[in-house]
Amino acid sequence: MSPDPLHPYPEQFIRPEDGVYLLGHSLGLAPKSALATVRRATEQEWARGLAASWNDAGWFEAPGRMGAKLARLIGAAADEVVIADSTSVNLFKLAVAALEINPRPVLLMEQNNFPTDLYVLQRAAELMGRTVRTAPREELINALNTDVALVCASEVDYRTGHRLDGAELTRAAREAGVVCLLDIAHAVGAVALDAGDYDLAVGCCYKYLSGGPGAPAFAFVSRVLQGQLRNPIAGWLGHAAPFAFAPDYQPAAGAVRWAAGTPPILAMAALEAALDLHLETDMNARAARAFALGETFLTALGDTALQRITPARRGAHLAFRHSEGLAIRDELKAAGVICDFRAPDVLRFGFAPLTLTFDEAARAGDITAAVMRRGVWREAQRTGVVT
Amino acid sequence: MSPDPLHPYPEQFIRPEDGVYLLGHSLGLAPKSALATVRRATEQEWARGLAASWNDAGWFEAPGRMGAKLARLIGAAADEVVIADSTSVNLFKLAVAALEINPRPVLLMEQNNFPTDLYVLQRAAELMGRTVRTAPREELINALNTDVALVCASEVDYRTGHRLDGAELTRAAREAGVVCLLDIAHAVGAVALDAGDYDLAVGCCYKYLSGGPGAPAFAFVSRVLQGQLRNPIAGWLGHAAPFAFAPDYQPAAGAVRWAAGTPPILAMAALEAALDLHLETDMNARAARAFALGETFLTALGDTALQRITPARRGAHLAFRHSEGLAIRDELKAAGVICDFRAPDVLRFGFAPLTLTFDEAARAGDITAAVMRRGVWREAQRTGVVT
Repeated sequence: MSPDPLHPYPEQFIRPEDGVYLLGHSLGLAPKSALATVRRATEQEWARGLAASWNDAGWFEAPGRMGAKLARLIGAAADEVVIADSTSVNLFKLAVAALEINPRPVLLMEQNNFPTDLYVLQRAAELMGRTVRTAPREELINALNTDVALVCASEVDYRTGHRLDGAELTRAAREAGVVCLLDIAHAVGAVALDAGDYDLAVGCCYKYLSGGPGAPAFAFVSRVLQGQLRNPIAGWLGHAAPFAFAPDYQPAAGAVRWAAGTPPILAMAALEAALDLHLETDMNARAARAFALGETFLTALGDTALQRITPARRGAHLAFRHSEGLAIRDELKAAGVICDFRAPDVLRFGFAPLTLTFDEAARAGDITAAVMRRGVWREAQRTGVVT
Repeated sequence: MSPDPLHPYPEQFIRPEDGVYLLGHSLGLAPKSALATVRRATEQEWARGLAASWNDAGWFEAPGRMGAKLARLIGAAADEVVIADSTSVNLFKLAVAALEINPRPVLLMEQNNFPTDLYVLQRAAELMGRTVRTAPREELINALNTDVALVCASEVDYRTGHRLDGAELTRAAREAGVVCLLDIAHAVGAVALDAGDYDLAVGCCYKYLSGGPGAPAFAFVSRVLQGQLRNPIAGWLGHAAPFAFAPDYQPAAGAVRWAAGTPPILAMAALEAALDLHLETDMNARAARAFALGETFLTALGDTALQRITPARRGAHLAFRHSEGLAIRDELKAAGVICDFRAPDVLRFGFAPLTLTFDEAARAGDITAAVMRRGVWREAQRTGVVT
């Protein structure tokens, strides 16, 4: 048996030619199969099939059909996930719905969560007449009490890569009579998840899942909560019978009730190819490979002036702090390592399990070590070449 | 000068081969240019450009850039329209925002509005602690009073094709201290609009605009109201500086503040090609051509057992009532006329101004007249061949 059962997968993606692409945590590589499904959806299903494709090409069933596929990637049941809207919109829906059934006055959220989470949750709490309380992610469990209706956090921190135990937070929340809503955008596709232990989750599909830029997002609602929560955006695609054109709303069975409007089919086509590719592989194998790719990079990197801020319990990206991070990123790019920079001083290197090879991870570590040794970025910074 | 200045445009679309396609009110034909922009977005911008395309390919600016293009198609100012989300989600955002600034107890909505509008508005009113009152579209102005915070209606009725005067309703609403929210999904691209007279509007881009199946939708917010209303779904794409990753929400300038999450770029690419094609043409010329195409159909049709229910003041589709409508639709399809059926008894024929030829409109009328004369659908209905 091969020590790397997933080694054929990088060849299933369009390979970048200008360096080692370590931005799987931002926008995943395009699966070759996605190019074909997008062409088919555009040039055949739309251009030739036209309106009949809503039935003939399975467009109507896509939110639920694809949700069931994504469910298998996160350890959820088929009827617990829908593909719909964006992460921001899904977060809003689930947060409002959770607050609606729990009159307690506080929405507790992670202090340094991804900004869209902070914005959406602050506003949702305001609309529902609640107060927002924040705590560092490590302190959320201690901050749970009888004032709290809903707690929201990210499974993997977008900046540090720290992984929180979403199942543990959910258990603690349940014991305190609190609903737990997790953003798993930076986790899905890269770490092993067991959404069967969760209450609610949202996430995007364009990072490690390689679903395409701005790919439709997902919402997970546990079966238990599906009977209690109601979608605040009661659009027709979440209706039990959209084409009955009935005057009153009846939610669809299962997670499909969390859909709202008509989904962007061309974007859905890319995502479905990416989901199908992931379904060929095992979640634990993907998680192990992502971790091992990161370790390969770290070994090659050795000791440098980059200060690692990613803890041992981590997702699939590694983050380092350096006061000249922006200049270093540009120098790395010129040297063939594509990472990103988050102000004021964080460099992120993402290790997408299906798209990267171990050779690339090692080469990226070697190059980064050499760049740090050379210190050319310091010169560039002084002369103003790097912007 | 040509009597049909838009005659070259049908050739700019992929032409259906199995009949005259009269479903422009449902899903518009694919512009040939959209096939190219989708390929470019998928195979170059995503697969080759990767994350750098957020800047290099103008992905970040797309909601506002494309909103400004759509604005020109509806007589709005460039900063009054954003492309984002679906019609359902945009309707929710604007309805909640309008109710938030007006404490009056009632949301007044059109009784027989498109179902997603009914569902979304009922639920939005419930969340905001308001009561829904309904009235037929012709009675909305009379139903305006000091109890009403918001009135919602469709410019063109999805079933009958009746056109309401949105500007007149808005004027009456303003006089009564009411905000007016119009769904112009069945109007945009097909009739002349002057959104400069509106308060709020939403609509989709996959019907007459030919933006692709489930194309991202739009939201129009007048400049006056932009200073007063706040997006309830405060996602990062509506933030003034999404990449500052600031902890607090600051709305972007203009209509971009009505964006929420990351837009589906591959679907946006198709839509942008469609918008660019429309921008080559004049709104009044499009509206006149849509009307004339319908008249050509009606002339060829002559008197039949189909009972026209579309009034003189109409959008670009014509609707007829017949108790055997479903069977007639199937018979028409077999004979080369593609229309649709809405239970219990409505047949709809859409006349998209840029995609249809006058020959096609006349041929569709001739075929429909012949099918109605033959009455073969009655036979099929009896023997159960038609399902």
